Parts: sequence; structure tokens; C-alpha cells
Amino acid sequence: MAAPKFIAGLDWIAVDWGTSALRVWAMGSDGANLARAFSSRGMSNLTPDGYEPALLELVGGWLPTRIENPVPVLVCGMAGARQGWREAGYRAVPCLPVDEAGLAAVETRDRRIAVRIVPGLRQESPPDVMRGEETQLAGLIAGGIEDGVVCLPGTHGKWVRIEAGRVAGFTTAMTGELFAAIGAHTLLRHSIAAEGMDKAAFAEAVSAMLANPARLTVDLFGIRAAGLLHGLGAVAARSRLSGLLIGAELAAIGGLWSSREVHIVGAGPLAEAYGEALAAHGARAFRHDAGMVTLAGLARVRRMSGAGP
Amino acid sequence: MAAPKFIAGLDWIAVDWGTSALRVWAMGSDGANLARAFSSRGMSNLTPDGYEPALLELVGGWLPTRIENPVPVLVCGMAGARQGWREAGYRAVPCLPVDEAGLAAVETRDRRIAVRIVPGLRQESPPDVMRGEETQLAGLIAGGIEDGVVCLPGTHGKWVRIEAGRVAGFTTAMTGELFAAIGAHTLLRHSIAAEGMDKAAFAEAVSAMLANPARLTVDLFGIRAAGLLHGLGAVAARSRLSGLLIGAELAAIGGLWSSREVHIVGAGPLAEAYGEALAAHGARAFRHDAGMVTLAGLARVRRMSGAGP
Repeated sequence: MAAPKFIAGLDWIAVDWGTSALRVWAMGSDGANLARAFSSRGMSNLTPDGYEPALLELVGGWLPTRIENPVPVLVCGMAGARQGWREAGYRAVPCLPVDEAGLAAVETRDRRIAVRIVPGLRQESPPDVMRGEETQLAGLIAGGIEDGVVCLPGTHGKWVRIEAGRVAGFTTAMTGELFAAIGAHTLLRHSIAAEGMDKAAFAEAVSAMLANPARLTVDLFGIRAAGLLHGLGAVAARSRLSGLLIGAELAAIGGLWSSREVHIVGAGPLAEAYGEALAAHGARAFRHDAGMVTLAGLARVRRMSGAGP
Repeated sequence: MAAPKFIAGLDWIAVDWGTSALRVWAMGSDGANLARAFSSRGMSNLTPDGYEPALLELVGGWLPTRIENPVPVLVCGMAGARQGWREAGYRAVPCLPVDEAGLAAVETRDRRIAVRIVPGLRQESPPDVMRGEETQLAGLIAGGIEDGVVCLPGTHGKWVRIEAGRVAGFTTAMTGELFAAIGAHTLLRHSIAAEGMDKAAFAEAVSAMLANPARLTVDLFGIRAAGLLHGLGAVAARSRLSGLLIGAELAAIGGLWSSREVHIVGAGPLAEAYGEALAAHGARAFRHDAGMVTLAGLARVRRMSGAGP
């Protein structure tokens, strides 16, 4: 990979450090994004002492050789997990999504950077945790969404109530991870296509779950039986699996989204599928780009630190 | 392994051929079980031409060197699947659990045996299939259970309505396979113990699912959150996962078992867990040994063939 180039006017660095990916943005003092970079050095393939080299591999060249004040580096995501770079803990809801007081400072060998990690959020009852999404919520709120329902689909999909610019409560469903585990490690692996979407099969499965959510474990086997007895195709089977699990999630979240505006964070087919499922059942769904709201959330943290626009 | 010994008075051979195991019984003309054997040559590690050698490895020595009439071999289970020894199809419910007309004859190179495979059962709506359990149902019915509800826990757990000695309908839940896939291939693998049972945690999770079955995908993530926030232990986490999934199955099956007598086929901790969950919620549960009812079911098939006691 080409060496990153020195960036004049670099004010701070935004970092989204997830389980499987590392994303960095070089930010100017006027809030402009001057450069960005990406690597696959996520938490799942790093030990604690691997974080600083992995970061410097992407941003080292952006930094001046000698500076009076270190460049602030603000990190959100799994780098703050117990098994990450440095544990950043969890702040208890209800609370603001981010707060300068909770940031965890990381001591680095390279004195040109001053790294701080955004803590996650915790809810005592029912017990629940998030890490990374709090920063996206801060970005949405900074963008003017001070009250509403937010849906963050994914491996562990989150549903969040925002009230007066604060996180009132949230719920996590294991939907994305269930889809992957069931699709690869049960007999449905013989039934479902690797990709493709049959919108009708998806919509029908969402409706079936909303009508009778208790049937999930039975309807999952029904995908196999429909393949054996009725010739259900592999793309329809995949779409039905997705619809059952997303429908089960929508049923679990219940009254939170029904007849409401829902802000979906994410792009691509998954966010689209959530949008269609919600629209079909009476919610109004708005989509927001995940990278944009993450960056906006980190910029919000930067402003809390008393600098930047 | 020691060579199997010739058995005088051998009348027929009973075979239960599952996904991961092969079980055989040498039967006398008076219904006595004269010998038994076992191997791990199940469907999952056999190609179609491997079945006859795998069978003869266990029963070859039981057979006389020269006989006038071949020894009947009656097979139930996955050997009759499309990807098995020879496809035995499915008979449509409502129907008797087994019926001589549906048996699929297999041509063998060894002329000392006459192999026939018991077909599975199919239900058109909701689509569902079983293979192997129909023989266990025949055994239960032969034992006098001509009306009732039967629960066959396992990888793909079955619930069956028996009416006047016939199979009226059935439902499959993917419970056992979900437990394995979720326990090994989601973040809960970090949370749950490899074994052990916390009966209180199990019972609480069963009750939670029966009270609110829609919450399954959310309560699964809650196991992880309770570990992080409230120190939920690994055995309690495993028991809660089991309880959530069995509770979800009981909720899906709904009115079938409630305030009823339920006949559970199976031994060991899993059948015990089902028995406790059912008893805690108002059903009366009876347990039946799976091997015994399988053998009784194959004996029923043998009697239908007009021989045996």
C-alpha cells in the first residue's frame, strides 16, 4: 500500500474501530474531511499491543514529524471493549449518547497522537449493552433528530428510543448473527442460496412472524419442509429465512416502531429490507448512512472537547 | 472388532439407521431380541454404495452361510432419505404411522438378506416431514397409546397428535439444532458452559418464553448482556439458552400440550428437561425409551408383513 501523505491543516483524527474493520478520517479544523483510509485490522484479529501499529499504518504519514501538541484521535467501537485496545466501560442510560467525561485516554508510544476512546452504553433492566452505536446516535442527534426511534440493523441489531436528545432506552436482537449461524450451521444450509432476494417471500415471512411470532422455531424448519414438499427455491428460502428473523425482531420490539417514524442507520440491502418491512407494517422509515452518522458523532465528541467548529 | 457370531433361530433383523449412527437388533421368531450391535456409520458419512457393507459389517456373521429364504431386514430412519441408501418417500398424514404397502425394497448383492425401508411421513399444510419418528410412533401405538400427544425432542423436535391409532398431524421445531448453532457460532459461545444445568435458570427462561415468546431474538442477546453486566455464570447462561429455546418450542406448539398428557420419547438430560418444563406448566409428562419404541415399531412392521408373533 502507498505510504499515506502528510496532511497540512490536520486538526484531529476520527476512528471507527469495529470487530472486523478499522476506518479513519483526517479532519480539518473547519470540520472538513481531508482524507480517509481503511484496513481490515479489526478487534477480532488484534491483540492489545497491535492497535497502535495498526492505527499508525493508516495515519502515521498524515502526522507532522514534530509537533508541539499531539493530534487528538477520537475512537469509537470495539477498540474500547474489555478484549480491545483499552477498556472504555459503559455509561448507564438514560444519558446523553456521548459525554466528554467518559472518554478513556490511551497511552501511546508515539507522542504525536493523543488517543481517547468513546465508552459504550449499558442498560440495567432488561440488561443490554451497546458499543459504537452510541456515537452514531450522537451523530443523528447532532443532525437534529432529538426525539424518535432509531433502528441500527446488523449482527446485533439495536433499537433505540431518543428523548430530548438523550438515549432513553434500547434493545438488542441477535438477528444478523442468527441469520449467519442458521444459514451456515443447520440443515437450512442445504436449502438457502448464498445471495439474492425474493421480495414477496421476504414480505410474507415478515408478516407471518408479526402475526404469530411464537412460531419462529417451527417456521424455520418449515423452510426445509417447503423445499422438500413444495419445491421452494433457494433464493425464496434465503429470503424467507431473512424475513422470519427480521419479522421476529420487529415482533420483539413491538410497540416501539408501530405507526412511528423510524430512523434506520445503514445502507445496502439489509437496511433496505428493514425499510420495506417497516413500511409494509405502518411505520415511516428514513435511512441514514452509517459512515456519515459515525463521523458526525465523533465530530460531536470533538466539539465537546472544546475545539473544532 | 470381534466378528459377529452366527445366530441360530434368527427370524429377522431390525435396523435404525440415523444421520450419525447405525443400530441393529437380531430378532427371534418369538419376538425375542437375540443380539444387538452398533456403529457410527450413519447417513452423514456414507455414500449409497456404502450402506450394504456397513450393514454386513454388523450383521454378516449373524447370517447362515446358505439359506433358502433371505432374512428380512427392516430399516427405519435416514437410510430412506433422498441422499440415503434408497429413497423411501413420504406417506401423507393423516394415516397409520407405518403400512406395509409403503415399504421400499432395496436390491442387495448379498442374497441372504431382503432389505426394506420404512417411508417417512409428510404433511401438506403447514408443510412438514418426519423420517424415523413414524416408526417410534408405531411402537408407542402398538404399546397401547392410541390417542394422545407425543413429543420427540432432538435436533429437529417433533410434536405429534395421535388419534385412534393414526397420526393426525405433526409439527417440527428446529430447537436442538438452534441450540448447537447458537452455542457454537454466535457471540454466546463466549458465555455458555460446555455442559451443566442450572434448573432455576432453565425454568425461568422457559416461563419467560411462554409469557412472551416474541422476545426470543432479544432474550438471546440478553444472555450475553447479563453476563457482562450482572455476572451471569456460564452454566446458568447455558441453562438459560436451553430454556429459551425449549420455551419457544413449547410456545410455538401452543395448545397441543397444555393441560394434557404428553408422551416424551427419549431418555437422558434432554428428555428430562422437557419433562420438567411441561410439568411446570400444567402438562402431565410420561417418558418412553427411544430405542425400545423404535424396536417395537419395527416389530409392528414385521407383524404387518404377516410373520412373527
